[in-house]
Amino acid sequence: MQNIKLTIEYDGSDYHGWQYQDNALSVQEVLAGAIKKLTGEDVIPDGSGRTDAGVHAYGQTASFRTASKIPVGNFTPALNSFLPEGISIIDSEAVNDDFHAQFSAKGKHYRYVILNRPQRSALLAKRAWHVRQVLDFGAMQEAAGFFMGFHSFKAFCASGHSVKTFERTIFKSAWSREGDLLIFDIEGDGFLYNMVRIMVGTMVDIGKGRFGPEIIEGAIESGRRNDIGVTAPPFGLYLMKVYY
Amino acid sequence: MQNIKLTIEYDGSDYHGWQYQDNALSVQEVLAGAIKKLTGEDVIPDGSGRTDAGVHAYGQTASFRTASKIPVGNFTPALNSFLPEGISIIDSEAVNDDFHAQFSAKGKHYRYVILNRPQRSALLAKRAWHVRQVLDFGAMQEAAGFFMGFHSFKAFCASGHSVKTFERTIFKSAWSREGDLLIFDIEGDGFLYNMVRIMVGTMVDIGKGRFGPEIIEGAIESGRRNDIGVTAPPFGLYLMKVYY
Repeated sequence: MQNIKLTIEYDGSDYHGWQYQDNALSVQEVLAGAIKKLTGEDVIPDGSGRTDAGVHAYGQTASFRTASKIPVGNFTPALNSFLPEGISIIDSEAVNDDFHAQFSAKGKHYRYVILNRPQRSALLAKRAWHVRQVLDFGAMQEAAGFFMGFHSFKAFCASGHSVKTFERTIFKSAWSREGDLLIFDIEGDGFLYNMVRIMVGTMVDIGKGRFGPEIIEGAIESGRRNDIGVTAPPFGLYLMKVYY
Repeated sequence: MQNIKLTIEYDGSDYHGWQYQDNALSVQEVLAGAIKKLTGEDVIPDGSGRTDAGVHAYGQTASFRTASKIPVGNFTPALNSFLPEGISIIDSEAVNDDFHAQFSAKGKHYRYVILNRPQRSALLAKRAWHVRQVLDFGAMQEAAGFFMGFHSFKAFCASGHSVKTFERTIFKSAWSREGDLLIFDIEGDGFLYNMVRIMVGTMVDIGKGRFGPEIIEGAIESGRRNDIGVTAPPFGLYLMKVYY
């Protein structure tokens, strides 16, 4: 058996998220269908984690085992020939037998893109969150700094999902600006459900002057979801890279 | 009567080009529908020129006359409220009565985007031309230089369209590179039918080593379409700006 790691780019607007569901088409299901066509095997590829409907990926990863003798480098073009254009395999490599896309992951890089101008953008309609109001970029940058380091992010976790621990370490948390685009890059050893989107929604509320940046510090301490802002929409979020 | 100039962004993959057609939905027709809803008037906005099906625009322009008393600044948000998300009004301004989006134009800026790597991209599927083969970027840059200045571009014009003259002046013609993306920017006082796409197709053939860069010079002299390369696909092309 070969253990194969795939790196996958997808346009999240075409699918109901990564994870297999009974009543809606997911990236995982479409990918499993392409693997079946290529190898003849019924296999569910294990992703590095879920992405919600609308969330995009430049660097989602998945792993699966196969008895197929196809050389590993051929998986990229061969799977792409069976995949719709909204899902692309970027890389395929053979990995050790104990590698697992989720459990072996050491960290992730997410990006969130905001279009901050009065007029909406046709070409970014499903690729960025359109915020019309002028935002206080300095306050948002200051807020982003509070996420750095080892903290409990319970206040930044949507309810309804059981997790063992709310502690995560954030290595990078910073905004940059390119014209009308405000871009938030965050890297950490793990992320809770909706964590990046709640962080961004809260920072946009801070940018609007609804809260001061110090609310982040308070919410980290209190652990109360109610102390902070809205959840940013999914279509501005990109899973950029999974670190191993 | 007010004469209104609109600046329009659109995702060309959703429409059969700019120009009104009987059997397919065009950007012009959808825009006319939004103007009708806003003002009650039947008016066909005049565009700066056609864009083919699949071609995108960040800065298409159109002008139309209206008896409506709506303040000009309100046209942007009001029209957007009647338009689908793939078409966005970016700016609306009142212009002199003799202004016409096509006939007053002094020049245009087009951009063409090529994704040059072995694997395709899901997020650029309808936004760039995917060319797998490694291209000779230096040869393409050299080729782009031959377009500069005042020339007859008859060899770079698709047949079946009558024009008065094939002479055009090109102010800018240059490639740049961002990671896997090769980006061609061209500005000129006017463009023939399919001219940018034939230029790019020919430069890609040059990048593949099929021709030398000097073929551009020869084709400008001969005026023969057969002397040069393929027509690049529409979905890598963006109308960036119309100059007045």
